[in-house]
Formats: sequence, structure tokens, C-alpha cells
Amino acid sequence: MEGNGGFRALNDKSLVDYIKSTPLLVSILGNQVEDLDIKEVGDGNLNFVYIVVGSAGSMVVKQALPYIRCIGESWPMTKERAYFEAVTLKEHGRFCPAHVPEVYHFDRTMSLIAMRYLKPPHIILRKGLIAGIEYPLLAEHISDYMAKTLFHTSLLYHSTTDHRRAVAEFCGNVELCRLTEQVVFSDPYKISQYNRWTSPELDGDAEAVRQDDTLKLEVAKLKAMFCERAQALVHGDLHTGSIMVTLDSTQVIDPEFAFYGPMGFDIGAFLGNLILAFFSQDGHADQANRESYKKWILGTIADTWNLFQKKFTSLWNEHKDGDGEAYLAAIYNSPSLLLLAQTNYMKDLFHDSLGFGAAKMIRRIVGVAHVEDFESIVDAKKRASCERRALEFAKKLLKERHAYHTIDQVISIIHEFNQ
Amino acid sequence: MEGNGGFRALNDKSLVDYIKSTPLLVSILGNQVEDLDIKEVGDGNLNFVYIVVGSAGSMVVKQALPYIRCIGESWPMTKERAYFEAVTLKEHGRFCPAHVPEVYHFDRTMSLIAMRYLKPPHIILRKGLIAGIEYPLLAEHISDYMAKTLFHTSLLYHSTTDHRRAVAEFCGNVELCRLTEQVVFSDPYKISQYNRWTSPELDGDAEAVRQDDTLKLEVAKLKAMFCERAQALVHGDLHTGSIMVTLDSTQVIDPEFAFYGPMGFDIGAFLGNLILAFFSQDGHADQANRESYKKWILGTIADTWNLFQKKFTSLWNEHKDGDGEAYLAAIYNSPSLLLLAQTNYMKDLFHDSLGFGAAKMIRRIVGVAHVEDFESIVDAKKRASCERRALEFAKKLLKERHAYHTIDQVISIIHEFNQ
Repeated sequence: MEGNGGFRALNDKSLVDYIKSTPLLVSILGNQVEDLDIKEVGDGNLNFVYIVVGSAGSMVVKQALPYIRCIGESWPMTKERAYFEAVTLKEHGRFCPAHVPEVYHFDRTMSLIAMRYLKPPHIILRKGLIAGIEYPLLAEHISDYMAKTLFHTSLLYHSTTDHRRAVAEFCGNVELCRLTEQVVFSDPYKISQYNRWTSPELDGDAEAVRQDDTLKLEVAKLKAMFCERAQALVHGDLHTGSIMVTLDSTQVIDPEFAFYGPMGFDIGAFLGNLILAFFSQDGHADQANRESYKKWILGTIADTWNLFQKKFTSLWNEHKDGDGEAYLAAIYNSPSLLLLAQTNYMKDLFHDSLGFGAAKMIRRIVGVAHVEDFESIVDAKKRASCERRALEFAKKLLKERHAYHTIDQVISIIHEFNQ
Repeated sequence: MEGNGGFRALNDKSLVDYIKSTPLLVSILGNQVEDLDIKEVGDGNLNFVYIVVGSAGSMVVKQALPYIRCIGESWPMTKERAYFEAVTLKEHGRFCPAHVPEVYHFDRTMSLIAMRYLKPPHIILRKGLIAGIEYPLLAEHISDYMAKTLFHTSLLYHSTTDHRRAVAEFCGNVELCRLTEQVVFSDPYKISQYNRWTSPELDGDAEAVRQDDTLKLEVAKLKAMFCERAQALVHGDLHTGSIMVTLDSTQVIDPEFAFYGPMGFDIGAFLGNLILAFFSQDGHADQANRESYKKWILGTIADTWNLFQKKFTSLWNEHKDGDGEAYLAAIYNSPSLLLLAQTNYMKDLFHDSLGFGAAKMIRRIVGVAHVEDFESIVDAKKRASCERRALEFAKKLLKERHAYHTIDQVISIIHEFNQ
């Protein structure tokens, strides 16, 4: 396994040797490395993830291999993604340490990150949503994460010198961006060997997506924004599977798709995946009445956007005399003018978020990668019915997003499609 | 003069030694380097430019110094701009050799470019416009240049892999971008030591610009687009002083401000500077009746946009099955859908161009760098009257650009302000 510039794919045996030969990791484990308990838990699509627990400390070790794990060596994917993930965890962690796990160690040659182990009862948010668990602090925490990470990596906070330097570096993560371009903005709108859907129930629906000219024209605009607009350092894959939660903790993981892109791509990913969770609830309703849980999801969607807007604007006000160069204080020099500028900015960001959120919903129903929210509904008819309502809502949202001015209007439309 | 990593500022004496020690340059001069005629002609703001003529060949040698020539060492400016200029001349020249001078030699250490000498009767277009000379091929040529350079460096032609690689490289030209950000999008809208205007005549007009909230909100959107949107490799300074012409030749020079930015920034720069030339004509009217010349300018404005649109769309059609990833043929798979996509694209590009064009006009009247079109009008009252009409038109255009659908509508408004 040697070669490839020093890279070796580890397993739970060779990982122990790696740890023993890395003093920093040994010290994090409290210098007790004899009876380490190592478990491979990578249930994601891309990487190997090991939980390492010793008698005096613990950590998670994540290693990227040069292909996509869930597909195999036939779909190569640069392991340099681990570098962009590590840089982003550190950068986002600097601005929002409460919701980003600490990076202990990064080894670029080995594409290996050692970071804080998010102990039980932390679970993947998506699993909590499927189980019908309410997370009372979720909107508060995620709005905090998004406001802090997006604001501080934008031109509202950065000088253009710092911004262009960072943009240039993250241009290197192009392979991961290309994967998103393909699976989010292209494949669902054409015949592709990777697409799948609940068949035969949704055959006509998938076909309708491929024949919807208005939808395709709107998707082109979103794709252009994704490819061209370096607005902030976005996580790049902020769905409910990239978030670990307990009732009082919310932690954002897995930013390997990070790049300088449109802020709405993150906000939309989170909101869109909550909406998917909403439409999937009827498929899980035999386990219990989910009506009050559906209300909680909608409330969390509304709270997330409203809190995000409030927090982002507060950060802007706080830093309006800082280094950010988008709105110089000497030009936007009255409270009323600044408020107008902020209103314009948030309106555009709202529409971007709705567009990207809708696109992320569509691709989860007729594209390559589906969500467990729907996949875990065993009855295909029931699943198709949930998916169809989500899909129809998403198409309307994508096409008519500019007509909405508040998140409450969006929630009214969700209600309509819930009938 | 040694040091600075091998960089030496040349003069017309040391340039001869430099040429003699560079075999390629010697060969371009037909191996006759004894009686070279060397003239320094840099009338621009930034660099030293030498015309080198031997008995068997000629060239232009341009050297960037690490400050802005017209201001001096008090305003430092990276000489790496020569690198971006050379790369852009070559890249644009590859796609449009008819309108970009050939680069013979680039020396990064010396920030020195040797390129084709554009012989007399080539003159700077701006001087031709002031003299009232009609260039019947100008619209044809510049539309060709803009369509070819912008199309072939956009995602309509590039893969996203190539695009992000190129974007990353040009992020390095941040200092020149920052100069534009300051003098085009910021200084005119605030008190700045660098601003000037025809005073006292335009004191109130300059003040009105600084107090126009609607204008400032629109300028913020353009600035964000300039800083964030990597649409194509733009020249970055495509005014009528960056173009050399004869009656049958049009050559675009000086792309040292080049970067991946919004296409409308180039198109707007050219159109906006033609509109400035239009409004300046009454100041030169004592030399001759300029009415028919003003008509020619307006015709050239209309032809430039209409021809650009036609040529750009033709290139798109020609390459619709190529490597460009913005509009995949498998998705935009009917002639009517492709036409709709193109119509949307050109509409947005038109509005961007009008916005940037207007911003470039405004900054030439109340910002640091003015245009000879107005500066050469000696009578301050007459100059102020011309400038005021141009300024008022530009403010309206910037604020209401989304209301215009054709270039003819824009020209009607120019007529209104010409009264």
C-alpha cells in the first residue's frame, strides 16, 4: 500500500500504529494507547471514519480515499478533499466553535483528519427527524452557525485582498464542486445512468422534470451562480445528514464540499432537507401521530430563516465600520440607507436560498443520492405519494421563488401541498 | 538599480542592452540592432512604453514599475500586473488574433512585455473620437473582440475544471481589481482626496451623487458582482483609451486589469466611454458641426451591442455540443429551449452592461481619473454643461437599467439628455 506520495489507506489495525507514532494524538488520548477501542462507522458516501476510544481520551479519525466509497474505485475522487475539509473545519470553527468540532490534527499526505469525537447521545439529525424527535434548540443553533460562518467569510467582513486569496485556494476543490454540479444541477434534468426514483410510481414525474422547460431555465441560473459567484465560504453539503445533534448540542460535520460559493446554497440545503423531512412524515405516521411533529418541523424552518436573518444583520451592524469592503461606512452612512441595503441583501439571499433548497429537494427524489427520510418508507406506494408531494412543491418553489417575501408564505405553500 | 529579485527599471539606454542580450528580440528586429530608434511614449497612467524601430523590424516594449506612474512612488502598485497583462494578451489573442497585438516576449522578473508595434496611422481611439473621425468598422471589430474573448473564457466554452483553474490564477491580480473597486465603485460616492470635478460648476452635482441613496444601493450591487462573479476573463479597462485604431484596423491593448469578472464590465466600459464621447461633442463643436458625428457615435453604440449579441449567440450555437458546462446539450435539448436560455442570458448581460457602463461614466466626471474627451474642452462652463448632461444620463441609466430591453431605448434616452 506504499507509494502515491506516502499515502496509505488505513484499517483499524494500521490506524493504531499511526496513532502511536503521532505524539499529539497520543497525548489527546491521555497517553493511554494500549487498549484502544476502534470502530469504523463511515456510513457516509465518501470516506472511512473511525471512532477511537481509549481509557483517558477519545477522537474521531477520518480518512479520504481517492475514490467515492459508496460507488468504488470506478468513480475516482481526489483525496485532497480532506485538505479542504480540514481548512474549513478550522475556519468555520474559528467563527463558530460552539457548533463545529475541533480539529486536533491534519495529515495532508495521508488525507487524514483527527477531530473531536461527538459522543453519544449525539446522532445524525436526519435519523432524529425520522424518529420524530424534537430538537428545541436546532433553529437557534443552526442559524447561529450559518450567520457566523457565512458572514465572516464574506465581503461584509473580509477585505477583497483576503477574499480573493481564499477564493483562489478553494478553487482547488473543483472536483467536489463538479460532483455537485452534476448530481444537483444536471443529472436530474436529463437521462443519466445514475438517476433513480421510486419506479414505476414516479416514472411519469421524473419524465416531467426532464421536460419542464421553465424549471430547466431556472436551474441554469442557479448553476451559473454556483459556478461563478464567490460570495462566502460555504459548507457545500449542509443537509440534515451533515449535522449531529443531541437535545442541547448541534454540531456541523463533513464540509469536504466547501468552496467560495453562494450563501443560499447552504441555507437552502438545510431548509430543503427539513422540508423533505416534513413531507416524509406521513410515511412514518403508522408509528405514531406525526401531526404535532410536522408542526414542529415547519416552526423550525420558519425560526431558522428568521433567526438567521436577525443574527446575520446584527453581525453586519456590529462590523459595519470594520474591514469588510462591500458596504463602506463612508458611503452607506445613514441608518436608513444601511437598513435599505440590508433589506435588499436579505431579499436576494432569501430567493437564492429558496431556489437552491428546491433544487436540492428535487435531486433527492429523481437523482442519484436519495435521503433516508423517504428511503426508509418501505411501502413503495406510500413513499411515492410522499415524494410526489415534495417534488411538486419543490418545482413550484424553484419556479416562483421570487414571488415570496417571507418564510411564512413559503410555509403556507407547504401546507397546500400537504393536502 | 539591481536588487528587487533581478528587476531593474529600464530607460531608453539600458533598454538597448536588454534587447541586445535577448536573441528573440534581436531576431524580431531582423538582426539589425545597431541604429535602433527608441522613443518613450507612455502617456497612460501606469507604465513605461517604448517604441523600438530598427532598419529591419520594430516592436513595442512595455515595462511596469512597482507604483502608479502618474501618481508616483506614493501609490505603490504591484508590477506583477505585467504578468496578468501578458497572459491575457496571449489568451485573448488566441481567440481573436485580428484585434489583439501579438506578444513576442515576456520577462516576468523584469515585468516587461515586447509586442507588436501598432504603426501609424494607428492612434488611440479616444483621440480619434475627439477629432471627430468616423471609424466605419469599429462596431464590427469591437463586437468581434468582445464576443470572442468573453465567450471563449466563459462556462459556455470552458469546463468548470478549466474555469476554476483560470479563476484561481487571476485572483492574483487583486491589487489592480482593488484599484477599480476604489475608483469606480467607492470614491465617487463618498468624500475622497482623489476625487475631482469641474469646480465650482459641478460642486452641487458631485454632492448630489454622494447623497443619492438609490444610486448608492444600485452601485453596491454592481460592486458585489465585480468582486464575486467570475463569469469570463474580462479586459478590465476597456475604455476608448485602451483601443488603437485606423480606418480599417482596431486593436485592443493594455489588459493589465484583467481578471475573471462579469462580462458586462467590458461591454459597459466600451459603451459608456462612447456615450461620454457623445456628450463631449458639443464642447468641440466650434471646430465643426458635430451633429452628423454624434449620429455616427450613436449608431456605433447600437451596432456594437446588436452585433455583439448576434456574434455571441452564434458562438454559443456553434459550440453548444462542446466542453462548456453551463448549458448541457442533453438538458437544453430543443431549439426553442436553447433560444429561451440565450434570450435570458443576453437580457441579464444587457442590464449588467448598462449598469457598469453608467458607473464608468459617473466616475470619469466626479472621480479621480477623467477623460480627455471632456478635459480637452477648455471653457469650463461649456465643459461643465457637457459633463452634467452625461452625469444625469448615467445616473438615470444606472438606476433604471432594468426597464430597458433594447439598445434603441437607451439611445432614445441619450437623445433626451442631449436637449
